[in-house]
Amino acid sequence: MSTPPAASSDGSTSSAAEVLDLLGRSGQSLAVAESLTGGLLAATLVAVPGASTVFRGGVVAYATDLKVTLLGVDRELVAARGAVDPQVAAQMAAGVRRSLGADVGVSTTGVAGPDPQDGQPPGTVYVAVDVGGGPAQVRALVLAGDRAAVRAATVRAALSLVRDCLPG
Amino acid sequence: MSTPPAASSDGSTSSAAEVLDLLGRSGQSLAVAESLTGGLLAATLVAVPGASTVFRGGVVAYATDLKVTLLGVDRELVAARGAVDPQVAAQMAAGVRRSLGADVGVSTTGVAGPDPQDGQPPGTVYVAVDVGGGPAQVRALVLAGDRAAVRAATVRAALSLVRDCLPG
Repeated sequence: MSTPPAASSDGSTSSAAEVLDLLGRSGQSLAVAESLTGGLLAATLVAVPGASTVFRGGVVAYATDLKVTLLGVDRELVAARGAVDPQVAAQMAAGVRRSLGADVGVSTTGVAGPDPQDGQPPGTVYVAVDVGGGPAQVRALVLAGDRAAVRAATVRAALSLVRDCLPG
Repeated sequence: MSTPPAASSDGSTSSAAEVLDLLGRSGQSLAVAESLTGGLLAATLVAVPGASTVFRGGVVAYATDLKVTLLGVDRELVAARGAVDPQVAAQMAAGVRRSLGADVGVSTTGVAGPDPQDGQPPGTVYVAVDVGGGPAQVRALVLAGDRAAVRAATVRAALSLVRDCLPG
């Protein structure tokens, strides 16, 4: 059958704990907007005891139209560029930060595979972090491996980008 | 450190595949609203290849106020009963079905532990399924084990309830 949705022996749980600790020290809250990771980023954060003091929640916008209706991504942008796009990632992060009333928003969009999507090959992924008061930070990834490997690496990259966007 | 967010060797991935297959055969779509499972139910569904034909997405309403603002749960109900309540579960399932434009909505709310919440002990969980045209089906669970075990058992119970609410 298919591979399990998560295996955190890869260090993503300790990365999540570090990110939650840093945010908690500065009194900041976090929200996530997920496409290809489909809830795995949120689940990784929630696996950390005490996550509720920082983590508000998230939106899993797996169907493309939900990125527009739930997260406020520009409809024309998605129509022109598809869902796997750095600007879409940026708008997802900003949208979830706004709609969930969080200080920091983080997003994932990309192709887990095995098939291409919107003309993009599997492993093409964008993660973004929005902290308000300026443009979102976006990181482009080219990942190898099957669906589970691409998702796990995306979760790690998203947490790493949040970490890099925080002072200290 | 903390336990990993998921381990699907417990059969939840095959349950997810069965639910998606049954929904797909009848042309129905699915949306999820999660509290204590924090994205794990969505991630379990997305781990099934081809999930995108049925699974639209979900809302992780981890903070209690998001159950009201994102899912339309009655504010007075939450104020009076807390978030760990069968009617809250029912309204979460109905709300996510509506707001994500899905045919079937499924929800989870409860206490993963280790601490009690809203006066309820760890392992107190409700899962609900709403298919429209009548009241949601709600199942009350009393689960043993740590945070990870309670979450994994909740995912299994939610998938099982969806299965039981479908004909055939």
